[in-house]
Amino acid sequence: MAEYIEALQVLTEQFSHLEGVGKKSAQRMAFSVLDMTDEEVQGFAAALVNAKRKIHLCPKCQNLTDRDVCSVCADATRDTGLVCVVSDVRTLLSMEKVREYRGVYHVLHGVISPMSGISPDQLKIKELLARVAEGNVREVIVATNPDVEGESTAMYLSRLLKTLGVKVTRLAYGIPVGADLEYADEMTLFRALEGRKDV
Amino acid sequence: MAEYIEALQVLTEQFSHLEGVGKKSAQRMAFSVLDMTDEEVQGFAAALVNAKRKIHLCPKCQNLTDRDVCSVCADATRDTGLVCVVSDVRTLLSMEKVREYRGVYHVLHGVISPMSGISPDQLKIKELLARVAEGNVREVIVATNPDVEGESTAMYLSRLLKTLGVKVTRLAYGIPVGADLEYADEMTLFRALEGRKDV
Repeated sequence: MAEYIEALQVLTEQFSHLEGVGKKSAQRMAFSVLDMTDEEVQGFAAALVNAKRKIHLCPKCQNLTDRDVCSVCADATRDTGLVCVVSDVRTLLSMEKVREYRGVYHVLHGVISPMSGISPDQLKIKELLARVAEGNVREVIVATNPDVEGESTAMYLSRLLKTLGVKVTRLAYGIPVGADLEYADEMTLFRALEGRKDV
Repeated sequence: MAEYIEALQVLTEQFSHLEGVGKKSAQRMAFSVLDMTDEEVQGFAAALVNAKRKIHLCPKCQNLTDRDVCSVCADATRDTGLVCVVSDVRTLLSMEKVREYRGVYHVLHGVISPMSGISPDQLKIKELLARVAEGNVREVIVATNPDVEGESTAMYLSRLLKTLGVKVTRLAYGIPVGADLEYADEMTLFRALEGRKDV
C-alpha cells in the first residue's frame, strides 16, 4: 500500500476512477508516472486538460468532435437520409470501421436503464426526434446492443419514430446475443448491417 | 479508432504509455476522461504533476518519499542493522504488509538484465555498498524475485557484500519459483522471511 505517500495515493485514486481500472492497475500506473521525465508528465497533464477543453458534442449527431460539426456530418458524400442510432461513440467508431456504411449517426450517450436510473430524458432522444421531424430522414437503424437494455431502448425509439412516419430497422442478429458491439469484428458488423430488418 | 479527433488520439497515446495498458484500455480511459467534469480533469492533471514534483528518492534507502527521508528510515524503532534489498518500491510495499519485518530497506530500482541492457551501474548498488561499508549493517537480505534475473542479481550482490564482511541471506523458497513478489500473499512472504538462509 502506498498510503504513506500522499501525492502517490492521490494519483492512484485518480487512475482508479477511470472506467475498467482496478486498484492494483491504478497503483502500477501511478508508479509508471514517476518513471517518466518531467516533460512527459507535463505533456500527459496537458493532454488531459486539452482533450476535455477541445472536445465537445457535434450539434447535429451528438458525436464527439473538436470542430463545429463532426467529421461524419462534415462529409458531403454521406447519405443524411439514413441515420444509425448508437448508444455511444465507441460503437460509432466500430461501425465506421465497416466502411460499407455511408449514412450518418445519432449518438444517444447511453441506453434506457431503470436499474441504473437512466430515463429517456437523460439520453439524446429529443435531439433525434427533432432531427427526424425535419423530414429529411428516410430510415433509422437502431444499433443499440442486443441485450435487454439495448432491445428495450430500441423498442421505445421505434414506437416514437414510427409516429413520425420514418422506416425503423434494427441490425440483424449476426451479432452474438448478449455481446458488446464495441468488440464485434468488421465482418460480423457488416453482415448485421446487410441483414437489418424492420422493427 | 479515434484517429479523427486529435486531442482524443493524443490522450489515448498518453494512457497507452503507462505500464500494462493496451490500446483498447487506453481508449476506454480517454473516453472516461471526457465524461468527467472540468474540475475533475483539472484535479487529475494536478495530481499527475504534483506526484512527479513532490516525490523523490529517499537519500538513505532509495525508497520513494515526499519528505527528507522515507517513512521507514524516519522510524526510530526500525533495526538499521538489518537491510532488505528489493528490486522496486512495489516489492517494498508488499514486504511492509507482513508487519513482522522490523529492519530497513534498500531499493535497487531494477535487476541486472543483460537481455534488457541493464548493467549493475544503472542500479542503486554503489549506494548499497557505501551504506554497508559504513559498518553499521549486520545482515543484508537480498529479496529480489526468484527468477533468473533476480537470482543472478542476488549472486552478484552477495559476492560484493561478503567482501565487506556482512552476512548475506536470501528469502526462503516458500515463494513459488518464477512468481512475482508483488503478488505474494502475506503468509507466504512471512514464511519466506522466517526461513531465510545464507547465500
